[in-house]
Amino acid sequence: MRGGEHEGTVHLRVRYSETDQMGIVYHANYLVWCEIGRTELMRELGYAYADVERAGIRLAVAEACVRYGQAARYDDALRVVARVTAAQSRAISFGYEIHREGEQPALLATASTRLVAIDERGTPRRLPPELLERFRAGSSQE
Amino acid sequence: MRGGEHEGTVHLRVRYSETDQMGIVYHANYLVWCEIGRTELMRELGYAYADVERAGIRLAVAEACVRYGQAARYDDALRVVARVTAAQSRAISFGYEIHREGEQPALLATASTRLVAIDERGTPRRLPPELLERFRAGSSQE
Amino acid sequence: MRGGEHEGTVHLRVRYSETDQMGIVYHANYLVWCEIGRTELMRELGYAYADVERAGIRLAVAEACVRYGQAARYDDALRVVARVTAAQSRAISFGYEIHREGEQPALLATASTRLVAIDERGTPRRLPPELLERFRAGSSQE
Amino acid sequence: MRGGEHEGTVHLRVRYSETDQMGIVYHANYLVWCEIGRTELMRELGYAYADVERAGIRLAVAEACVRYGQAARYDDALRVVARVTAAQSRAISFGYEIHREGEQPALLATASTRLVAIDERGTPRRLPPELLERFRAGSSQE
Repeated sequence: MRGGEHEGTVHLRVRYSETDQMGIVYHANYLVWCEIGRTELMRELGYAYADVERAGIRLAVAEACVRYGQAARYDDALRVVARVTAAQSRAISFGYEIHREGEQPALLATASTRLVAIDERGTPRRLPPELLERFRAGSSQE
Repeated sequence: MRGGEHEGTVHLRVRYSETDQMGIVYHANYLVWCEIGRTELMRELGYAYADVERAGIRLAVAEACVRYGQAARYDDALRVVARVTAAQSRAISFGYEIHREGEQPALLATASTRLVAIDERGTPRRLPPELLERFRAGSSQE
Repeated sequence: MRGGEHEGTVHLRVRYSETDQMGIVYHANYLVWCEIGRTELMRELGYAYADVERAGIRLAVAEACVRYGQAARYDDALRVVARVTAAQSRAISFGYEIHREGEQPALLATASTRLVAIDERGTPRRLPPELLERFRAGSSQE
Repeated sequence: MRGGEHEGTVHLRVRYSETDQMGIVYHANYLVWCEIGRTELMRELGYAYADVERAGIRLAVAEACVRYGQAARYDDALRVVARVTAAQSRAISFGYEIHREGEQPALLATASTRLVAIDERGTPRRLPPELLERFRAGSSQE
């Protein structure tokens, strides 16, 4: 993932509630972190997700994949990086990296999600043009 | 807790996702189980919570207390029992017991919650009279 | 997915805690349901996951993908079906279907996960031969 | 709650995953936030909870109560304050306040928990004297 202005980065500390009895973070929680990164990316693009919902549009997850490497553990300091990888009129794709920071930094997981725009009844909709424009400007597509 | 027709009982198996690295169930999840028991109790009283929401009323939790005894563990078979302990025009109180079933049955926890009726904007409302009537009929108050 | 004895099937009802403010189930929770299906499949293969952990082996999720169709909603009755799709000495792959039951039955989502065997310190391990044998017998691979 | 050095304070932003279909935060999540505040308090007292576990002691929640006022909502900026309210050789009590920050600041909820020290098998234990001392020094008891 390129560095640059078109990324959303958040810093998190692993919560006790996110661990399971294997002593590591329960795998579904990585999707929660991805979403926090995505929220931050949208805020940085100038279009907070809360604003999107106020405009009557929801972005529903249509597909999500996570590849897990080393496990995240309780109290780990994490850095989640999100970026737009594709922006179409009805669907946006995001890529994510989850890094452990501190003394033993490592890339712990990568993930991707595809989101589709729907209205309050669940009917597919086009993204607001202004939002789409910002996603395209923020995308790493060439 | 008296036995009888005015209880909602559900049977659950502890999920892996509900454990934490202490090797037991994370404490906040007991409130989730209480809510499932409450949902079942309302269904048995003939007034599913989904119906309540369709009528424009939400029941928001105003107070919740849990006392934990022996810990619930992964794959334990549980029985959650809920009953109405007080029914007022704007607030309903529930009591709960969480039991482990199987070879080593035990009462694992007790809990109580008080719920208040609000509308979609969060404004306090009276409970629909029919619902209140059912809660009162279903209550163990004398 | 073929019908047959080599599937694990569980019936769930969507919990209120699993919804989000979009009015549908939060997407990460589908992975929790997949895991419950996987647990049931292992139980049916005669090798409960709790037994696997007692033998010092953990099955850690190395990869997970979910494709979401129609959304699951509060109080929906679901059927989760899991089966083994590949069984190797160090890694097992599973496929999943999440169906809504009742008046408007539908396939809501499909998913896949790949799990690797590790010991208590996180070191990769071979699966116990007996468990691998059962996974292979239970697999839909030819 | 007195201001002062004996508090643990954390700043959180409400996650989408923490909301439910009522459009507000699901009530059980407040206990998660309390725990994050407690973790921070312990870190500030110089005894991180991760260190406590490394010493073979777990602090298990024996009792938890939450009083909910105005609801927390998606993307709200929160401040969670935790302090020790009682410190005994086998049990520690904590009090919590959850505040919304920003343009419309408000105290959203208060909570209390009592934790007991147990070893890895769940047997009650005394707290390590050094930890107890720090809790006592950090307590607001007179």
